[in-house]
Amino acid sequence: MSEIITILVLHGPNLNLLGQREPEIYGRTTLEDINSRLTQLAEQRGAKLEIVQSNHEGVLIDALQAAAGRYQGVLINPAAYTHTSVALRDAIAAVGLPAVEVHLSNIHTREEFRHKSLTAAVCVGQICGFGWRSYALGLTALLDLLQ
Amino acid sequence: MSEIITILVLHGPNLNLLGQREPEIYGRTTLEDINSRLTQLAEQRGAKLEIVQSNHEGVLIDALQAAAGRYQGVLINPAAYTHTSVALRDAIAAVGLPAVEVHLSNIHTREEFRHKSLTAAVCVGQICGFGWRSYALGLTALLDLLQ
Amino acid sequence: MSEIITILVLHGPNLNLLGQREPEIYGRTTLEDINSRLTQLAEQRGAKLEIVQSNHEGVLIDALQAAAGRYQGVLINPAAYTHTSVALRDAIAAVGLPAVEVHLSNIHTREEFRHKSLTAAVCVGQICGFGWRSYALGLTALLDLLQ
Amino acid sequence: MSEIITILVLHGPNLNLLGQREPEIYGRTTLEDINSRLTQLAEQRGAKLEIVQSNHEGVLIDALQAAAGRYQGVLINPAAYTHTSVALRDAIAAVGLPAVEVHLSNIHTREEFRHKSLTAAVCVGQICGFGWRSYALGLTALLDLLQ
Amino acid sequence: MSEIITILVLHGPNLNLLGQREPEIYGRTTLEDINSRLTQLAEQRGAKLEIVQSNHEGVLIDALQAAAGRYQGVLINPAAYTHTSVALRDAIAAVGLPAVEVHLSNIHTREEFRHKSLTAAVCVGQICGFGWRSYALGLTALLDLLQ
Amino acid sequence: MSEIITILVLHGPNLNLLGQREPEIYGRTTLEDINSRLTQLAEQRGAKLEIVQSNHEGVLIDALQAAAGRYQGVLINPAAYTHTSVALRDAIAAVGLPAVEVHLSNIHTREEFRHKSLTAAVCVGQICGFGWRSYALGLTALLDLLQ
Amino acid sequence: MSEIITILVLHGPNLNLLGQREPEIYGRTTLEDINSRLTQLAEQRGAKLEIVQSNHEGVLIDALQAAAGRYQGVLINPAAYTHTSVALRDAIAAVGLPAVEVHLSNIHTREEFRHKSLTAAVCVGQICGFGWRSYALGLTALLDLLQ
Amino acid sequence: MSEIITILVLHGPNLNLLGQREPEIYGRTTLEDINSRLTQLAEQRGAKLEIVQSNHEGVLIDALQAAAGRYQGVLINPAAYTHTSVALRDAIAAVGLPAVEVHLSNIHTREEFRHKSLTAAVCVGQICGFGWRSYALGLTALLDLLQ
Amino acid sequence: MSEIITILVLHGPNLNLLGQREPEIYGRTTLEDINSRLTQLAEQRGAKLEIVQSNHEGVLIDALQAAAGRYQGVLINPAAYTHTSVALRDAIAAVGLPAVEVHLSNIHTREEFRHKSLTAAVCVGQICGFGWRSYALGLTALLDLLQ
Amino acid sequence: MSEIITILVLHGPNLNLLGQREPEIYGRTTLEDINSRLTQLAEQRGAKLEIVQSNHEGVLIDALQAAAGRYQGVLINPAAYTHTSVALRDAIAAVGLPAVEVHLSNIHTREEFRHKSLTAAVCVGQICGFGWRSYALGLTALLDLLQ
Amino acid sequence: MSEIITILVLHGPNLNLLGQREPEIYGRTTLEDINSRLTQLAEQRGAKLEIVQSNHEGVLIDALQAAAGRYQGVLINPAAYTHTSVALRDAIAAVGLPAVEVHLSNIHTREEFRHKSLTAAVCVGQICGFGWRSYALGLTALLDLLQ
Amino acid sequence: MSEIITILVLHGPNLNLLGQREPEIYGRTTLEDINSRLTQLAEQRGAKLEIVQSNHEGVLIDALQAAAGRYQGVLINPAAYTHTSVALRDAIAAVGLPAVEVHLSNIHTREEFRHKSLTAAVCVGQICGFGWRSYALGLTALLDLLQ
Repeated sequence: MSEIITILVLHGPNLNLLGQREPEIYGRTTLEDINSRLTQLAEQRGAKLEIVQSNHEGVLIDALQAAAGRYQGVLINPAAYTHTSVALRDAIAAVGLPAVEVHLSNIHTREEFRHKSLTAAVCVGQICGFGWRSYALGLTALLDLLQ
Repeated sequence: MSEIITILVLHGPNLNLLGQREPEIYGRTTLEDINSRLTQLAEQRGAKLEIVQSNHEGVLIDALQAAAGRYQGVLINPAAYTHTSVALRDAIAAVGLPAVEVHLSNIHTREEFRHKSLTAAVCVGQICGFGWRSYALGLTALLDLLQ
Repeated sequence: MSEIITILVLHGPNLNLLGQREPEIYGRTTLEDINSRLTQLAEQRGAKLEIVQSNHEGVLIDALQAAAGRYQGVLINPAAYTHTSVALRDAIAAVGLPAVEVHLSNIHTREEFRHKSLTAAVCVGQICGFGWRSYALGLTALLDLLQ
Repeated sequence: MSEIITILVLHGPNLNLLGQREPEIYGRTTLEDINSRLTQLAEQRGAKLEIVQSNHEGVLIDALQAAAGRYQGVLINPAAYTHTSVALRDAIAAVGLPAVEVHLSNIHTREEFRHKSLTAAVCVGQICGFGWRSYALGLTALLDLLQ
Repeated sequence: MSEIITILVLHGPNLNLLGQREPEIYGRTTLEDINSRLTQLAEQRGAKLEIVQSNHEGVLIDALQAAAGRYQGVLINPAAYTHTSVALRDAIAAVGLPAVEVHLSNIHTREEFRHKSLTAAVCVGQICGFGWRSYALGLTALLDLLQ
Repeated sequence: MSEIITILVLHGPNLNLLGQREPEIYGRTTLEDINSRLTQLAEQRGAKLEIVQSNHEGVLIDALQAAAGRYQGVLINPAAYTHTSVALRDAIAAVGLPAVEVHLSNIHTREEFRHKSLTAAVCVGQICGFGWRSYALGLTALLDLLQ
Repeated sequence: MSEIITILVLHGPNLNLLGQREPEIYGRTTLEDINSRLTQLAEQRGAKLEIVQSNHEGVLIDALQAAAGRYQGVLINPAAYTHTSVALRDAIAAVGLPAVEVHLSNIHTREEFRHKSLTAAVCVGQICGFGWRSYALGLTALLDLLQ
Repeated sequence: MSEIITILVLHGPNLNLLGQREPEIYGRTTLEDINSRLTQLAEQRGAKLEIVQSNHEGVLIDALQAAAGRYQGVLINPAAYTHTSVALRDAIAAVGLPAVEVHLSNIHTREEFRHKSLTAAVCVGQICGFGWRSYALGLTALLDLLQ
Repeated sequence: MSEIITILVLHGPNLNLLGQREPEIYGRTTLEDINSRLTQLAEQRGAKLEIVQSNHEGVLIDALQAAAGRYQGVLINPAAYTHTSVALRDAIAAVGLPAVEVHLSNIHTREEFRHKSLTAAVCVGQICGFGWRSYALGLTALLDLLQ
Repeated sequence: MSEIITILVLHGPNLNLLGQREPEIYGRTTLEDINSRLTQLAEQRGAKLEIVQSNHEGVLIDALQAAAGRYQGVLINPAAYTHTSVALRDAIAAVGLPAVEVHLSNIHTREEFRHKSLTAAVCVGQICGFGWRSYALGLTALLDLLQ
Repeated sequence: MSEIITILVLHGPNLNLLGQREPEIYGRTTLEDINSRLTQLAEQRGAKLEIVQSNHEGVLIDALQAAAGRYQGVLINPAAYTHTSVALRDAIAAVGLPAVEVHLSNIHTREEFRHKSLTAAVCVGQICGFGWRSYALGLTALLDLLQ
Repeated sequence: MSEIITILVLHGPNLNLLGQREPEIYGRTTLEDINSRLTQLAEQRGAKLEIVQSNHEGVLIDALQAAAGRYQGVLINPAAYTHTSVALRDAIAAVGLPAVEVHLSNIHTREEFRHKSLTAAVCVGQICGFGWRSYALGLTALLDLLQ
């Protein structure tokens, strides 16, 4: 496939704080680190990334809607909106691009309300528990699917 | 009533995509088509419309709050926020204008979590399942109520 | 469509008491008033109505079954049976005519057990909260659909 | 402690309408009145306040994130988001500042869905039911904790 | 009160079988025995009874509706419909006469689904567990209330 | 046993529509066909059938009550009333005849609310999923039990 | 039965406040009034009463236990303990005397948690909704049973 | 159909104990008796049976998997695994042969957790409550389906 | 208001152990310390306190009932009875004095069954999570209300 | 360990009736018998017992609190309070002594609400179903733990 | 009783790992140690043990079935199968031998899904929380019962 | 790290049927294909695999237990046991090796009972929805973690 694949990477609420605060707990990997690694990985695969982080449900939906026609796939960590946002779920379904949901932590070891994902049912698949590697695995899965 | 009635029409998240994508499923009626029809219907009834669409819960609430004193009624399709937004519910109740809730699809034939409406309890009534005609029926109901 | 459309109008239990009792609460609109208005509206649209009210679940089902082949649509206010009758639901589904469910009151502002409709899932759509106008809106929706 | 303590005061959705509408119900105390009283109370205690109101979940989260390093504590009335926002909960937890949750009304006398708070579990404590005084009590509690 | 009080006595489904079948279990008291005793008790109190038994939910509702204007109170054993009939509940509420609900058996010692009464909430009170005496007590309560 | 066994066959609501409508879905077997086959099977086993179909819960209960002393067993497809009728359950229990519950479709592959039977617990057994053969199997089971 | 029947009357928590406070709501009937009427009714029936009121679950249980051998029946209004006390339920069951449960108000019209009685299942029957007359009816039922 | 039909008969856990223990309760019919009767019935219909009993979920799954290509249908009494084994359900679905589920007892008269079947939804139908005759009826149903 | 306000302070079960045991966990503040601070605070506000601690639900109810006419308000930490005592709830409601509920710990961070308060719905408001300061804040709130 | 171990034995509500009533059901073992056997067993192990029985939740809590510093362990049968008393649970936790919970009957074979223990989670362990031997086993377990 | 009692001891899944792994958590007591102690205890009581451990639900059921006629009682730690195995429950019930359920840990302090036992309801009693001593207590209880 | 890493790959029930049956649905990838690809991938990473498939819960647990000391990690697709096996969960936890859970399909788009995983909470993470690539991603994740 000679055409370059472009992927929208969406980071949900509070992910911008990664690595900056409480590094003894969450480690020193920042969102910038994750983005660099993903960009590098994409380049190795001959793909390009557009990366958006927002704490606003509406901004995430706007970004998803704008993805139609411009990107071939979506890599999304909806963070807290995973468990509460029907609107985000509808946006993923409406845009119709293959989407992969990732989570840094293993959501099954956390509070009961985090065990259930509203968005996973409209994604291709879900990856959780591997820290920043969840993103790398998700991007790999998405590119394998598209290429 | 010689004074012109003005109505705020609120479209919730993802409704801006109507007719543009997957026309074989959702038909070719766009949100602009719906707005034209509603505007025409309003004119026939001697009323005026202000129309807002947003994917942002906060923008919808801001618009509702701004409606007080400027409009006489609200026609709202809260879309996904129907099922998750206590804030929107509170805004409708606080503004104190008669509101009519409409849905394009029949929410009772969809996923379990769409059967319940948080917002309907603070509206005058609810209309669902008639496609773009749900809006027309809702506007008719609202104008009948106000005139 | 040169042929005259005929619609079955079904009123469920206790609706025959409308307007006769406690007019200070429910208003003075009787079921006869509603029926007159609907008949008039039907005539304006070139349609005819057959109207049945019963407190008996079985009579309502019989009437629905008899509708097949004789009517083109059903306008139904199942009243209390909305929330308890799987048999009525099955009858609507079996008859296969487009049906519109209406309610005088906004069922979402009443007891918890009235928020759920067993019958709405087999109807085209549902309209509630507009008093006798719920019927008029429902008939309009049905005729728009059929014509 | 010779250094001046600065507190972020966050008002959630619809609180900007306080006192302006339906004064016969909610009283004539406006959000500005509350803010004045809190500012005055803060001054008496040798503290300063930064006050933000928003109907947008995302704006509230942004404000919370910006609080790290600039404020020593958070006084928050999440209003409707109390019951639906995991994202706000995560933001309070991530920022790591002591937060006090306040409510004007007694949430335990209202609808069932308002009895449960998603955010209280990541705050120091919760105060509800005392009208504008809930804020004053909350600020007092926060300053006592910090000084 | 010199006028004669007349009471509608309603027996729900399967109560006509009382005493005829399995007398070793249910005893030999028939519904006729109960009716005789109630009639006698009514006469002693200067009241008259109209007695209806039906296995048909609709017939019971019809009888209740016909009671308005003709009777001053209702003594009802809704039997199985106690737990399933919203229509009967609505009929009792619509008719607006004081109603007393009675049960032969103690419904709290039976299956879980019999512990809950849909109709009791629109009656003056409920009496259960005293066999035919539940009726006598209920009639006494009703007449005390009316006289 | 030289005496002829007579069985009451009860068909619940909407079963009279079988085969007449949507034959491409439900097949062309009508209720009359089923009844013929059952009658023939009964004759082969030296038994007689009395067959009743009704959409009225009350008529079905009346028929059950009349069965005592006249029939030796009951073959019943309560259809929709399976899931909602405590009154029918009580009638089966009160009549005290061995009853067999049958369903044309496999109720476990349908909506959640059809998975639970109120009537099965007072029957000898339940057979579902074999189309008209469910009836034949049920009659066989009943006659085996009685002979 | 020539022997005098003695009945233990048990009033649960907060019933001692009857009639003394908020007479515009609860009426002016005090617990003493109820006790007088019951005593008078008992005398007319040739029975004697022992009356105990307590706010203490333990005192009510002690009184019940002491009833064995000294009384022939128990008339009990467990008030709030109806809904929470397994210990009271066990005491009634252990003492083995016929007990009748009464309530002044119709518990089915109050909060959800008052609809369920832990104690009713070990009583002969339950009477609620008739104010002080619930007691009189309960005593009558108990004496009818014992005599 | 000149080819001989072969059926896999699967007996779940603890069914091997039938008739050997507590004959006063479960009767003296052993699993061997049931198997003989089924074999005889199969022969009369020109079919052959392979019969497996196991207390091991895994053995039952292995047997089901081995059935593909060798048998034309499955008669299964999953016993306790009916209510707990998703693995057995998946095996039945994967093998793709028509399966009939049978139970000796009427599962609807037993503990709540036995009312629900995980396996019935992937079978053609379910028969319960007729003792060993449930098997005979099930085999008849299966052969009728296949021949 | 020249008259001295007197407040009843009620401490529920196990609060008498405060500070005496496990000081490394609960701190060294004893109930006496709390009482001293409250008394001092009351004096500063020109109020007087009556303080009662009991492990007995009945004693707490007795104390509440005795408060009517003697006190102007109630400051209550119902401790474990918060979550189980309908009787205490009824007592607070019956006494009719403004009551403020306080908790030392943040009940929302503890076991699920501690998240729900039966008593809060009949109090003016609730304060939790601030250790002994919850009491001080509660007393302040109560005096502000009364003065 | 040369020092004598002293154990507090707590019997909850209604246990004082053991053996005195309905001996054909509960056997003739009285609470005194149990206490004698426990005392004897304790002596054999060189331990001493203090035994308290009460129907009052508060008395049981008082006794538990008084145990601190005077006893080394607690043997408790909370009876009905097992299922309802958060206060007793808190008392056991607060006192900090090793406690063993025992029940005469097997609580898992009784009503659903007896299957759950609020107190077991703060005890070392739980023993149920062995009649008076549950106590003996519990005392043995406790002494083994302490010696 | 001169005959030697023989007991089947059943250890469920993962119990074979005891003491071998993570001794700092689970201690150094191995399953062999437990078995030795139980054998010694049995010998002192003049009894013999047959001991089986398996990770296979089916093997445990086979062993239980084989116990009939060869053993007089069963000491069982079903481990994880406690919470999921209806088949094991049925096996214990079918075999008809007195069985005692034991657990090393206090299941009430662990995850919610471990609080409920499917097997306890068919055992004589249950003992949990005393480590290897739970087994010793269980064996003592069983032998006391049998001798 | 010069030492070769060895990984245990566990395939749960019915996975052996992959690709052999219904290839039009599940595709033609067999379990052997998946194993080959995983082995190849392992080799590229300098690791070795031991692969076990079983329909037996017990065999899977045995294999897990045997993994301790011989392998450095576990790649597991528990298939149906994901949702029902506490025993498998306990085995994973007991063995103490890092485990990664994978699923071929997206479990969030299937039946409700497949949305919940009992085993995921004791694994490092979970990957689902990518067909055979879920395994490849899982192995990559595991090796990244270990190397």
